[in-house]
Amino acid sequence: MIDPLSSPLLTDLYEYTMLQSYLELGMEGTAAFEFFVRKLPENRNFLVSAGLEEVLVFLENMRFSEEELAWLRTRFPSRLIDYLSNFRFEGDVDAMPEGTLFFRNEPILRVTAPLPQAQLVESRLMNLLNFETLIASKASRSVLIAPDKLLVDFGLRRAHGAEAGLLAARASYLAGFSGTATVLAGMKYDIPVFGTMAHSFVQAHANELLAFEHFASSHPGSTLLIDTYDVEEAARKVVCLCKKGFSIRSVRIDSGDLAKHASNVRKILDEAGLDGITIFASGNLDETRLEDLVDAPIDGFGIGTALVTSGDYPMLDCAYKLQEYDGRACRKRSEGKATWPGRKQVFRQFDANGEMHGDVLTLEEDRLEGEALIHPVMRQGKRIFERRTLHEIRQKTIENYQRLPEPLRRLEPAPYPVEISLKLAELAERTGEIKSA
Amino acid sequence: MIDPLSSPLLTDLYEYTMLQSYLELGMEGTAAFEFFVRKLPENRNFLVSAGLEEVLVFLENMRFSEEELAWLRTRFPSRLIDYLSNFRFEGDVDAMPEGTLFFRNEPILRVTAPLPQAQLVESRLMNLLNFETLIASKASRSVLIAPDKLLVDFGLRRAHGAEAGLLAARASYLAGFSGTATVLAGMKYDIPVFGTMAHSFVQAHANELLAFEHFASSHPGSTLLIDTYDVEEAARKVVCLCKKGFSIRSVRIDSGDLAKHASNVRKILDEAGLDGITIFASGNLDETRLEDLVDAPIDGFGIGTALVTSGDYPMLDCAYKLQEYDGRACRKRSEGKATWPGRKQVFRQFDANGEMHGDVLTLEEDRLEGEALIHPVMRQGKRIFERRTLHEIRQKTIENYQRLPEPLRRLEPAPYPVEISLKLAELAERTGEIKSA
Repeated sequence: MIDPLSSPLLTDLYEYTMLQSYLELGMEGTAAFEFFVRKLPENRNFLVSAGLEEVLVFLENMRFSEEELAWLRTRFPSRLIDYLSNFRFEGDVDAMPEGTLFFRNEPILRVTAPLPQAQLVESRLMNLLNFETLIASKASRSVLIAPDKLLVDFGLRRAHGAEAGLLAARASYLAGFSGTATVLAGMKYDIPVFGTMAHSFVQAHANELLAFEHFASSHPGSTLLIDTYDVEEAARKVVCLCKKGFSIRSVRIDSGDLAKHASNVRKILDEAGLDGITIFASGNLDETRLEDLVDAPIDGFGIGTALVTSGDYPMLDCAYKLQEYDGRACRKRSEGKATWPGRKQVFRQFDANGEMHGDVLTLEEDRLEGEALIHPVMRQGKRIFERRTLHEIRQKTIENYQRLPEPLRRLEPAPYPVEISLKLAELAERTGEIKSA
Repeated sequence: MIDPLSSPLLTDLYEYTMLQSYLELGMEGTAAFEFFVRKLPENRNFLVSAGLEEVLVFLENMRFSEEELAWLRTRFPSRLIDYLSNFRFEGDVDAMPEGTLFFRNEPILRVTAPLPQAQLVESRLMNLLNFETLIASKASRSVLIAPDKLLVDFGLRRAHGAEAGLLAARASYLAGFSGTATVLAGMKYDIPVFGTMAHSFVQAHANELLAFEHFASSHPGSTLLIDTYDVEEAARKVVCLCKKGFSIRSVRIDSGDLAKHASNVRKILDEAGLDGITIFASGNLDETRLEDLVDAPIDGFGIGTALVTSGDYPMLDCAYKLQEYDGRACRKRSEGKATWPGRKQVFRQFDANGEMHGDVLTLEEDRLEGEALIHPVMRQGKRIFERRTLHEIRQKTIENYQRLPEPLRRLEPAPYPVEISLKLAELAERTGEIKSA
């Protein structure tokens, strides 16, 4: 059985056709590829780097099984198969730690390795970094708009497959969410898991009151879903049950005018002296709706589809580009897709209050003022970057938010200066095939 | 090691809390849940059902490992753990075969099983059906707009994780695409795999001509990527190489004004007598751009991100709802989310030319004119629906397109009549908790 999450065949065919040529040509010089985002989506003032952990695990464990080699053998010459049967990733990786806030054209990861190795890892590496960064960046907007609310990932059912469900839980927690409804994500990443009842539980009972009684007796201190039939009426049933001695911690509203229902329910509960019962809301939420609901008497939100699909913009304009081969800087000059050549570093400058002031994109060997954002994380195929827990990464992300200029924390577009250093601009000017025309 | 693609823990926590209650209450009567889409996305005139095959495999193999049980044991009472340790899915499934075209409120799958079983499978079942149907439906638009072109899935790098990459390749092929660039999808589903070279191959060489020479000699009859520096100049290099005896089958253009470049390149090639070399285009394509390019001299298209993320609308407004429990029809009445109760069937009527004329949504036991779309596929946990190859499903999908009314084949919105039968309307009227107010 092939595990698609770790299989080196989860890649584009052209990686293998190119590999075959590189081996035949003896082109095994050192290549440096960088992963970056060309242009931020319209509604993102910054991005949150994520996915490095999965990339390092993938690189450390990249091996070809007999089954995989057998399939390739029917399509490629034996020279390539021999090379792959002994394949180990032996390159270097430099990267921004997960949770770093970054901007257009800033590489968040560089692979420096013999050309065939650095090329072969392209597709899966992009697949992981694109998705986790996409979701962490989307999640950060809800976290910044509703910093005092409980935010829970509810998205598994409409995530794009199994891994998307898991990684969306990880990426949103990394970006400051409180937890997820996805059980396996809780187990795998040690994330708090939330969840109580669906409408089907209420509907499977002859009436709602009976369903509430049953649920509250088998789960004391839990959350009741109160919108299957009539929200306010259901809230009065909750009051009745509490008076009878049932322990209920929270109610959830999943449809209708959430602010209006929450206000009505809050009033019903408060008048009965049940001000300790919290109100949780869900149903087609995103950061824009959160902004409208943040002043309603709602204590927490379940955010699903819009979060795990990055609904308003489900992709990043990202690239993994060859920036240097065999000591020579490279530059793609395709129309609208030209890149900055060479191995790069990003320096971030802060003002006196510790607030982010501006970034400079420059060459790796350059030394500028400010904090260097790209760090060595793997050398010769071995990770040298200490593994942090997801809780530690989350904490660091939240600290990073605190250094954002205020306009960038809002949902409305706000600019941030990223300068190109003179050295980099000069290198770009003289790099790339010279047009003969 | 837990495989997230088959783990019963890849689900929402509330499935387990409800299960615990159902077992304590002895609520193990027969439940019927249906999966349907409440409302089609704005730019979809129909949807293409997909994901059934993965759902059946999941249900047939659903087991709890020791590792999974151990994690649950720390959180749930032993009664639930005992139940899960012997768990087998023993229910019935009725469904539309993959490749069926369907509309709002029409169930594409029904699970009929003891309530705890039918409930527990909810999240993963939705996760699979939502995603594959989403992508097959998106892909169908490109297939209908460019029926004579070679269409290849190029999306792995921006698919949402590993499984999304694989299933997008499967779903787009099922919907009529010609193949994919994703190697593992080719191996797993026996889909044609396409791919040749990236810009990095050109950039790793001192100049483009050398790169072309090298690639063409190790891969006779392959495709050269001609937009790294200057498209037309690169096309002239292709002419030179062909005159020198190199065998080149195709060129790919990945940036700039694709129609203009393709025309220029076609002219350059034709003037050199190379009318057999085909032109392939890629780069941020979707069905709308395809419509503009369909008359350009382009023989095939690589479609990536917009396809595998369903970029214009990355989600379906789908639901898996309890429609009957213990012989009693159920109906959710939440605002804006009310559902049609009972076990249902869809009858499709065709006109004299075999063109789709209209559907009727009715109760399962009803017998109306037309073709019944929902068929038995699993009984008591065993599949009874013969496994079709993906090629057979694809062929059937293409036949189904041929029965679409012409306006529905276009990209512009067009309506299709779905009637609710009198019997179903009557059942809906008398179903659901009666409001005491």
